[in-house]
Amino acid sequence: MTIELLEHERIDDLQRNGYRIIQNEKKFCFGMDAVLLSGFARAERQEEVLDLGTGTGIIPILMEAKTDGKHFSALEIQKDMAEMAGRSVALNNLEDKITIVAGDIKEASKIFGKASFDVVTCNPPYMNQNHGLKNPDEPKAIARHEILCTFRDVAREAAALLRTGGRFYLVHRPHRLAEIICTLKEYHLEPKRMKYVHPYEDEEANMVLIEAFRGGRPQMRVEAPIIVYERPGVYTPEIYEIYGY
Amino acid sequence: MTIELLEHERIDDLQRNGYRIIQNEKKFCFGMDAVLLSGFARAERQEEVLDLGTGTGIIPILMEAKTDGKHFSALEIQKDMAEMAGRSVALNNLEDKITIVAGDIKEASKIFGKASFDVVTCNPPYMNQNHGLKNPDEPKAIARHEILCTFRDVAREAAALLRTGGRFYLVHRPHRLAEIICTLKEYHLEPKRMKYVHPYEDEEANMVLIEAFRGGRPQMRVEAPIIVYERPGVYTPEIYEIYGY
Repeated sequence: MTIELLEHERIDDLQRNGYRIIQNEKKFCFGMDAVLLSGFARAERQEEVLDLGTGTGIIPILMEAKTDGKHFSALEIQKDMAEMAGRSVALNNLEDKITIVAGDIKEASKIFGKASFDVVTCNPPYMNQNHGLKNPDEPKAIARHEILCTFRDVAREAAALLRTGGRFYLVHRPHRLAEIICTLKEYHLEPKRMKYVHPYEDEEANMVLIEAFRGGRPQMRVEAPIIVYERPGVYTPEIYEIYGY
Repeated sequence: MTIELLEHERIDDLQRNGYRIIQNEKKFCFGMDAVLLSGFARAERQEEVLDLGTGTGIIPILMEAKTDGKHFSALEIQKDMAEMAGRSVALNNLEDKITIVAGDIKEASKIFGKASFDVVTCNPPYMNQNHGLKNPDEPKAIARHEILCTFRDVAREAAALLRTGGRFYLVHRPHRLAEIICTLKEYHLEPKRMKYVHPYEDEEANMVLIEAFRGGRPQMRVEAPIIVYERPGVYTPEIYEIYGY
């Protein structure tokens, strides 16, 4: 099929099932965090999955390839990003498996209905200090800074959207970990599994992957960390594996 | 000097400053967790340090060797353990630097006074499920299970004992991490630095080291993990370094 590309758009190969994705380098391109989250998250047969703030649609597209999940919905507030993600879904002939919806995370449980998903995923904006932002209406700023929603909004909506026992998967920066864990617990999303990502084995973590259960009993497991680089320019075998090379 | 040893007591070399410690294998011998905590904790010149639930006195003795801290107090509820720790202090001629006090963690801020320390350390009992314990009055059970104090007691007393900006260092099991972080925050002990300990590089963490600041601003750093074994029976260089071999 023919997919129209707008100015500054390009098509990238995802190394999974022959899937491809449209990105716009002037707006926002997905990062390693989204790829690692799609490898960390689980979705079983018959499970309904929702991605909050999907951007390019990378997470539902990769999870459709990697898991047995039944159906993937995805919400994106920026209309042009949602439209582009929809074209990526069409490019891969996944219209039956993935539905992109334009809308606000803060309204997600109204849009989709309460307790209507088994799995919610989110790669939220990391930064909560928005003062001094030059262009708060730019797609990159919206993806990186809590301009249109806070982590509290994300946790509240994820909790409302999940069925009891459902799972919330997120990636975030370790510097906000204490706040994230306590906010999740406040909304009865019990953090049960974490995995840190370190650029090198002797460096601090720069990402954390978290699995939380709606209404779960407290019991945390901290998995072996992911180390990204063996040496400058050379990924570890685990990263090549996750990327599918 | 001559130090009297009671039945089942032995003297172990600590590989630091020629220091030695008395242990009683029928009661409780210190573990790697105490040694790793003494390597993770900092104490600067002129700083007053308190160890809660000191057992053999291993943490103040190792920290006296490894840091510039001015004075080390230590509290132990079991009278015979406190007495034995006192003999280890005397064995190393450290009576001017380390004071062992027999008393209850739950009363610690009454015993020592509020806001009277710059640093508090604790290797608390890890287990909170005490049902079915055969001998809850045994020293090993008291050291491992929350029989005589809970983590909430420890956090409340540490917060009361510390001056504003003072630091609390603890080691615990990752399975209680979410509860630990939220309880610390509740008592205005802001977790700022963590380090996980994994037995092998591809295994889950079985210990977590935490530094929390009394009244600190939220900002977490997750350091490179400690890996204990390179292969069965062979420690990693980092562990040999911490142990001082």
